[in-house]
Amino acid sequence: MRASVGDIAALVAGEVIGDPERLITGISSLQEAKEGDITFLANPRYAPFLLETRASAVLLGAAQPQIRERSGAPTQIVVANADFAFARVVNAYGPRSEPPPAGIHPTAVIGERVRLGKELRIGPYVVIGDGAEIGDGTTIHAQVYIGAETVLGADCVLYPQVVIRERVRLGARVILHPGAVIGADGFGYASVQGVHHKIPQVGTVEIADDVEIGAATTIDRARFGCTRIGKGTKIDNLVQIAHNVEIGAGCLVVAQVGIAGSTRIGNYVVLAGQVGIAGHVVIGDQAVVTAKSGVSKDVPPRTVVRGAPAQENKAAQILEVAMRRLPGTQQQVKELLARVAELERRLGELGGSR
Amino acid sequence: MRASVGDIAALVAGEVIGDPERLITGISSLQEAKEGDITFLANPRYAPFLLETRASAVLLGAAQPQIRERSGAPTQIVVANADFAFARVVNAYGPRSEPPPAGIHPTAVIGERVRLGKELRIGPYVVIGDGAEIGDGTTIHAQVYIGAETVLGADCVLYPQVVIRERVRLGARVILHPGAVIGADGFGYASVQGVHHKIPQVGTVEIADDVEIGAATTIDRARFGCTRIGKGTKIDNLVQIAHNVEIGAGCLVVAQVGIAGSTRIGNYVVLAGQVGIAGHVVIGDQAVVTAKSGVSKDVPPRTVVRGAPAQENKAAQILEVAMRRLPGTQQQVKELLARVAELERRLGELGGSR
Amino acid sequence: MRASVGDIAALVAGEVIGDPERLITGISSLQEAKEGDITFLANPRYAPFLLETRASAVLLGAAQPQIRERSGAPTQIVVANADFAFARVVNAYGPRSEPPPAGIHPTAVIGERVRLGKELRIGPYVVIGDGAEIGDGTTIHAQVYIGAETVLGADCVLYPQVVIRERVRLGARVILHPGAVIGADGFGYASVQGVHHKIPQVGTVEIADDVEIGAATTIDRARFGCTRIGKGTKIDNLVQIAHNVEIGAGCLVVAQVGIAGSTRIGNYVVLAGQVGIAGHVVIGDQAVVTAKSGVSKDVPPRTVVRGAPAQENKAAQILEVAMRRLPGTQQQVKELLARVAELERRLGELGGSR
Repeated sequence: MRASVGDIAALVAGEVIGDPERLITGISSLQEAKEGDITFLANPRYAPFLLETRASAVLLGAAQPQIRERSGAPTQIVVANADFAFARVVNAYGPRSEPPPAGIHPTAVIGERVRLGKELRIGPYVVIGDGAEIGDGTTIHAQVYIGAETVLGADCVLYPQVVIRERVRLGARVILHPGAVIGADGFGYASVQGVHHKIPQVGTVEIADDVEIGAATTIDRARFGCTRIGKGTKIDNLVQIAHNVEIGAGCLVVAQVGIAGSTRIGNYVVLAGQVGIAGHVVIGDQAVVTAKSGVSKDVPPRTVVRGAPAQENKAAQILEVAMRRLPGTQQQVKELLARVAELERRLGELGGSR
Repeated sequence: MRASVGDIAALVAGEVIGDPERLITGISSLQEAKEGDITFLANPRYAPFLLETRASAVLLGAAQPQIRERSGAPTQIVVANADFAFARVVNAYGPRSEPPPAGIHPTAVIGERVRLGKELRIGPYVVIGDGAEIGDGTTIHAQVYIGAETVLGADCVLYPQVVIRERVRLGARVILHPGAVIGADGFGYASVQGVHHKIPQVGTVEIADDVEIGAATTIDRARFGCTRIGKGTKIDNLVQIAHNVEIGAGCLVVAQVGIAGSTRIGNYVVLAGQVGIAGHVVIGDQAVVTAKSGVSKDVPPRTVVRGAPAQENKAAQILEVAMRRLPGTQQQVKELLARVAELERRLGELGGSR
Repeated sequence: MRASVGDIAALVAGEVIGDPERLITGISSLQEAKEGDITFLANPRYAPFLLETRASAVLLGAAQPQIRERSGAPTQIVVANADFAFARVVNAYGPRSEPPPAGIHPTAVIGERVRLGKELRIGPYVVIGDGAEIGDGTTIHAQVYIGAETVLGADCVLYPQVVIRERVRLGARVILHPGAVIGADGFGYASVQGVHHKIPQVGTVEIADDVEIGAATTIDRARFGCTRIGKGTKIDNLVQIAHNVEIGAGCLVVAQVGIAGSTRIGNYVVLAGQVGIAGHVVIGDQAVVTAKSGVSKDVPPRTVVRGAPAQENKAAQILEVAMRRLPGTQQQVKELLARVAELERRLGELGGSR
C-alpha cells in the first residue's frame, strides 16, 4: 500500500494530530510495526506499547499527548472506534484472500433443476444437489457439499469442505468457515424397553442475512419446523447448536459453546467461550453468559450470569468472595468452639442456672 | 399426507378419544400446528399449549378430558409413548431425506480388492481404500473417505465428508453424520528429555450395530486392540472419544462430551452435554453424569453424579445448599465473635476462674 | 513379527531378566496378550495384571522379582522408559498404516506455480492452490485442501479432508489429522450501533517442525502477524486456538481445549482436556492446567493450576477440603448460636454488666 496519513484519515473520518503528509506503506500491530506502518490501539492493555512502537501512524479513540514528545512517534488519527476504523483501512489497503476464479470448475457436480445465480465462483469437487438455488455473487470453495433444494442467498462465501444438507435456507452475505456442518439430524430418540428409536428430524435450518459461522461448527436441523439463526449473529468455531434452537439477531457466540435443543436465545446476547445452555430455556435480549458457565434456567434480559450452575453476576461474586474466606471462617468457628466451651466451664463454676 | 385419525391410531396402537374419521394432512409441533395437522405431547412443559393448538389430532400418553370442551380441539390418540408413536407417524407419512441415486457415481475412486455389497448408493468424489468391504444396502454420500481394509455392515448411512481410516469395523445400520472422523491416531507420546516421541497407534475402532455418531465427532483408534462402541449407543456432535475407550450398549453421549484414554463406560450410561471423563476410569451400568460435570474417579452402577470434580448427586446438592447459605453463615460467625467477646468481658468482670 | 527377546532388548537397550532366546511373534496390551506377545508396563495402575498376563515378554522400568515365580511368566526387559521402548518395538515390528501410493493421483487439482518436492504422495481429489510449495517426502491424503501460497515442509503427513487456507507455513514432519482446519478467519468484529462489522483477518499461521494436530482441531489465522505453534508441540482433537495465539515448544494440549485470542503459552506447558484460557493472558513455561479448568489470569512458570476460575493447586485443594467440611461447619455454627444464647441467658440471670 501507499497512502498518506491524510488520505487514511479521510477514509475513516478521523482527526489527524501530527503530519498528514506522512507516507504509509504497511499495516501491522503496535508491537510488530516498523517505520511506514499504520497500526491501532483499541484495547487499553496495550497502551504502554504506544511509547515504543515504530509505527508511523496510529488509529486511536482519544489523543495521547505524551507520545508526541518522542522523536519518530506515530502520527495520531483520532476516531470514534479504532477497531472499526482499522478494519476499514485493512479492507481498503490490506492483502486480500484470493477467491476461486470466476465461473464453475469443470469438476463440480451440479444436480438437476439447480438455479445458479450470476457471477458465481464454484471451486473443484463441489457437489450441489438437485433443486438447489445459489444466489448471485456467491463463492463456493473446493469440496463443499450442498444438499438438494437448499437455498443460498446472494454474496455468500462457503469455505472448503463446508457441508449443508438438504432444504436448508441461507440469507445473503452468509460466511461459512471450513468444516462447518449445517442441517445434520438433531439428536433425538424415543427409548422403549432399552432400545433408542431414532426420532425423524424432518425440519430444517434457516440462517438469516449477514451471519458468520466458524470452522467445524455444527447446527442441527429441527425435528420439524426450523432451527433459526438471526440476522447479523456471529458464531465462532466448534460450536454446537442443537435442533429447534432459535437464536436472535446480533448475537456473539464464542468458540466451543453448546446449546441444547429447543432453547431460545434473544437478540444481542453474548455467550462466551465453552458456555453450555440446557434445553428448553429462554435467554433474554442482551444477556451475557461469561466463559465456561452452565445455564440451566431462564436468564432475564440484560442480565450477566456466570458459574455452573450459572447465577447472576453479583450473587456469584458474593459467593466467590465468601468461598475465598471460608478457610478463615472455619478457623474462627474452631476458636469459637473453644472459647464457648471455656465460657460454659467458667459459668458452670459460677453456678448460673441451666 | 392424507390419512384418517383412525388409520394413524391403528399404526401406533393408540386409543382414539374423539372422531376417528377426521382427516390429517400434515405433521407439526403443538405450537406451530394448523388445522389438519397431527402433533404430540411428550414433555409436560408444553402441556399448556394443548389448550391453544390448532392441530386436528394429538398423540399423548394420557387422555386430557379438559381439552375436549373447546370447539375445534384436537382428537386425542392415547399411546404408551408419545415420542415413539410420533416418530412412527413421521416415518410412515413424513418427508424423507433423499439419498444419492442407486449405484456408484462414476467419480468414486474405489481401490483394489474392494468387496461391494448389493443395492449400494455411493455419491460423487467418494474414496474407498484397497481391501475395504461395504455391506448390502449401505449409502455413502458424497466426498466420504473410507480407508483400506475397513469393513462396513449392511444398511449403514455415511453422510457427506465422513472420514473412516483403515482397518475400522462398523456393524449394520450404523449412521455417521457429516464430518465425523473415525480411527484417527490416539494422542500418545513417550516424553524423553523434552522430546515427545509419537507412540504408534496400531489398533483400530469397532462400532457395533445400530450406533449413530454425530457431526464432527472424533473417535480415535486404539494404541493396540480396539476402541469400542457398543450396540445401539447414540453419540451426538463434537464428541471426543480417545484411544482404547470402551463404551457399552445403549448409551447416550450428548454433544461436546470428552472421554479420555482407556476409560470403560458400561451399558445404558447417560453422559450429558460437555461432560469430561478422565482416563482409565470405570463408569458403571446405567450411571448418569449430568451436564458439564468432570469425572475423575470410578462411578458405581445406577449412580447420578454431578459437578467438577463430580460427586454423587445427593452429596452435590447438599454442598450446593450449604454454599448458598455460606454468606449467611459468615455473618452469623461475625456476630458470634462479637457476642462471645462480650460474654468473655462480662464474665471477666464477674470474676469466673480461668 | 518374529524376533527373539534378545533382539528386542538390543533394539531398546534393555536388560533381560530371563530367557533371551524366547520367540516373540506379536504385540499387545498386558490384559489382551497371548503367548508369544510382547507387552509393557508403564502405568502402575496396571501392575496387578503382570501376575496374570499371558505375554511372553514385558518391557518395564524396574524388575519385578515376584512375577518370575509363576510358570509361564513373561521374560522381563528392564528399560529406562517403558512407553518409549514399546513405541520403538511397535515402530520396528508392528503393523503400518499404508500411505497413498507414491506419486500424484490424476484427479488432484494442482494450481499454477506450485513447487512440488520429490517423493510425494498425493491422493485423489486433493486441491492445491496457486503458488503453494510442498516439501520432499510429504504425504497428502485424499480430499485435502491446501490454499494458495501455503508452504509445507518435508515429510509432513496430511490425513484426509484436512483444510489449510492460504499463506500458512508448516515446518517439517508436521502431522495433521482428518478434518483439522488451519488458517480460518479469527473471530473479530467491530460493533458499531448494533452491527458487528467483520475485522479482516489478514495474518497467517506458522507451525514449526514436529508438531502434530488432532482431528477437527481449528487453528485460526491471525488478525495480522501470525498465530504460532512451537516446535514439537502436540495438539489433540477438537481443540480451538484463536487468532494471534502463540504456543511455545514441546507443549501438550489435550482434547477440546480452547485458547482465546492473543494469549501466549510458554514452552513445555500442559493443558489438560476441556481447559479454557481467556484472551490476552500469559501462561509461563512448564505450567500445568488440570482438566476442565478455566484460566482468566496469567499463570507463572512451573505452576499447577486448577478449577474455574483457576487458582494454584495448593490453594484449590485447601478450598476443596474447606468446602467438603462446610455442612459440618454450618452445623457447628448452629450449635454455637444456641450455646451462646444460653450463655447470655445464664449470664443475664447472674447480672453481669452490659
